[in-house]
Amino acid sequence: MRYLLGEKHIPYAWYNFAADLSNLEPLRQPGSGKPVEAHDLLPIMPPALAAQEVRREREIEIPGPVREIYARWRPTPLFRARRLERAIGTPARIYYKYEGGSPSGSHKANTAVAQAFYNKEAGIRRLVTDTGAGQWGSSLAFAGALFGLAVQVFMVRASCRQKPYRKALMETYGARCVPSPSTETEAGKTVLAEDPECPGSLAIAISEAAEVAVNDPETSFASGSVLNHVLIHQSVIGKEAVAQMALADDQPDVVIGCVGGGSNLGGLMAPFLGERRGSWKPRVIAAESSACPTLTRGRLAYDFADTAGSTPLLKMHTLGHTFMPPVLHAGGLRYHGMAPMVSAALEEKLIEAVAVPQTSALAAGLRFARTEGIVPAPESAHAIEVAVREALRCREEGRRETILFGLSGHGHFDLATYESYLSGALRDGEVSEEELGKALAKLPGDF
Amino acid sequence: MRYLLGEKHIPYAWYNFAADLSNLEPLRQPGSGKPVEAHDLLPIMPPALAAQEVRREREIEIPGPVREIYARWRPTPLFRARRLERAIGTPARIYYKYEGGSPSGSHKANTAVAQAFYNKEAGIRRLVTDTGAGQWGSSLAFAGALFGLAVQVFMVRASCRQKPYRKALMETYGARCVPSPSTETEAGKTVLAEDPECPGSLAIAISEAAEVAVNDPETSFASGSVLNHVLIHQSVIGKEAVAQMALADDQPDVVIGCVGGGSNLGGLMAPFLGERRGSWKPRVIAAESSACPTLTRGRLAYDFADTAGSTPLLKMHTLGHTFMPPVLHAGGLRYHGMAPMVSAALEEKLIEAVAVPQTSALAAGLRFARTEGIVPAPESAHAIEVAVREALRCREEGRRETILFGLSGHGHFDLATYESYLSGALRDGEVSEEELGKALAKLPGDF
Repeated sequence: MRYLLGEKHIPYAWYNFAADLSNLEPLRQPGSGKPVEAHDLLPIMPPALAAQEVRREREIEIPGPVREIYARWRPTPLFRARRLERAIGTPARIYYKYEGGSPSGSHKANTAVAQAFYNKEAGIRRLVTDTGAGQWGSSLAFAGALFGLAVQVFMVRASCRQKPYRKALMETYGARCVPSPSTETEAGKTVLAEDPECPGSLAIAISEAAEVAVNDPETSFASGSVLNHVLIHQSVIGKEAVAQMALADDQPDVVIGCVGGGSNLGGLMAPFLGERRGSWKPRVIAAESSACPTLTRGRLAYDFADTAGSTPLLKMHTLGHTFMPPVLHAGGLRYHGMAPMVSAALEEKLIEAVAVPQTSALAAGLRFARTEGIVPAPESAHAIEVAVREALRCREEGRRETILFGLSGHGHFDLATYESYLSGALRDGEVSEEELGKALAKLPGDF
Repeated sequence: MRYLLGEKHIPYAWYNFAADLSNLEPLRQPGSGKPVEAHDLLPIMPPALAAQEVRREREIEIPGPVREIYARWRPTPLFRARRLERAIGTPARIYYKYEGGSPSGSHKANTAVAQAFYNKEAGIRRLVTDTGAGQWGSSLAFAGALFGLAVQVFMVRASCRQKPYRKALMETYGARCVPSPSTETEAGKTVLAEDPECPGSLAIAISEAAEVAVNDPETSFASGSVLNHVLIHQSVIGKEAVAQMALADDQPDVVIGCVGGGSNLGGLMAPFLGERRGSWKPRVIAAESSACPTLTRGRLAYDFADTAGSTPLLKMHTLGHTFMPPVLHAGGLRYHGMAPMVSAALEEKLIEAVAVPQTSALAAGLRFARTEGIVPAPESAHAIEVAVREALRCREEGRRETILFGLSGHGHFDLATYESYLSGALRDGEVSEEELGKALAKLPGDF
């Protein structure tokens, strides 16, 4: 069962969840601790995005040209997962909002298009960014091609090896993709000097991208997650889902999304939590990787977004910006920090968090592919696993609850991961208390 | 610009182009030359499909459960390619019907679901098939998973090497994928005895699959193209496109599709040619590979569908069933024969044919990705190249014609091909007159 909306139902405004959070802290300057204002961000991003980063108003209008490009794949479908329900034998109703139909295959295109638009409008000529699994990098490459912007992507080296065709996809769109850590930046060279075999991390790639952006006035840094404006853009997912659940004459008791930096869940949950607060509200569950357990084992503190410590400080759940997560197939979940909006929501007990091992996630992903017919990205499979667990709970408790999860992308670039799982070679990464303690000890001072 | 239709606009009936063709010849028995009747086909396919293969009525009802699964991705969108038009600077209006949004990423899912349904209904337990680039094999694996049928796929060895993740996709859906020629069949062993390094071909893989099907009463052969029933199922593409062109208040002067076995173009063109014949009708252009030039350099004759000569004879344009096409990235276009319906349409001058070198196709595919945002499968890129040529002709002639082409699948599994093109390593395969003459000399006698 598919719930479709016509083009006129693409939202005209994004939903800014900042308006609903009482504990959302501003970015701060390292050292002084002074709150970051919009103009402080101008060296790395255009005025419109800098303004969105600090805004607290609930509604932000979506520019016409962005809406026009959204119309190529939005509104995305909402599906009722009847086959999965039957396979589990649950009385629960399971729905999923599917973002894999975008040209780049994931939800990342939602913010890529918006960021490319605002940068083009501001006269910027090049975008530079970091990417893990490559969903973000290829989305930005896609958006850059449509707006005539050059794009350079620092891709985590371990992911580059696992998913070589993501690099080829970026290049097909005309972008330049550089494995990170690289010798193109001081940040990269510093890391390589310490560990020439370093598999890389999102935090290192961010350091490299930010360095390039700061040193060239015609280049902006583009962020694929974590920052407020990114989560704002992703709210199209949640706004459409609210309308589609109404179309299905249903409402979710549980909303589930996978979290790496937090933009996927942030975009899905915001309109459900925000609009309904005070009356009925669903449980929201963040599904993170047990190999990078930011929400379940991290600390809520001010920390850098990158390894080099070159960014403003963000108040977020973090494993420490020097934390090196185990190499993981769900590269998009391999980040030490978490979006301040998602962190604040956890702090305000609006959401819960669950850590999922990747083998469990892949098992759920495989089951989903064989029942619902769509092969999910390994990241999205973490959300599926939690949805299955909730559906099993409903079966045990005899409850007819409604479960909604975000299917953030397809897994057509991740078949090596499924192959590895099917052959029994896939292992779960472990994070020891000792490693974690070491990284957390290197947190910058709090405010 | 995207033209969308709601679920109720999924066709209730397939369009059988056989009703419109005066020169469509029946399948014939090798040796006797007796026309093949439906019951002759029962050893390898269920009664419903065998009946469709010989039917001449124009409308064939789509079973409810098939329509229900179609609703997961159908109706597929029709796009106006305004950005491509601007990039070319043409006065022509270009539209494309996009089939890449299916769970398996191509139009092949349309017939896979139908074939799985009829086989399941007939009590069959396993489907066996051949696949080139893997679009068909993964589509059948997807459909088999939904209907609880085991699936075994003989995949052309050269394609297996080029696109390893297609094999992984089939396995993710639970299918078994065997590189062909294999040692699992007599047909495969015979080929390997002559040439242990044989890169394989669709015709060899068909021999292997047919052998397995004939030897097991609970196993059916499933065909991804060529046969009438396959083209009938693909007519959902054309029927929706007719409705969407009306929605756009336009009608095509030119309809273009790539052809390997012919099901993609066959499905797109049928309702345009059939319904309108007598009054206005568009030019239809078949875009084939210059490395496998079935329509432009082949002969119209009765020939086998497979290398071993184990199938009934088909009246079709053919390069000879022993022809070994050069290894090609657009594996889906690498077949010696052509659907009898498409062959008859060419014979009746309802359509034209153009041979496209793969480097030109890839150049067009790259341009399309960077303007329209969708990375096309290399097969589909052949149609894009012809659409671009037609748009350039319109520019030269100052004509505001309407061009419609079929975008049969996405290229997310074909990034190695784009990589090869971008690095300058991609070469065009050549077919010498001598090779061709040799293969044509081995045609079975005509009737």
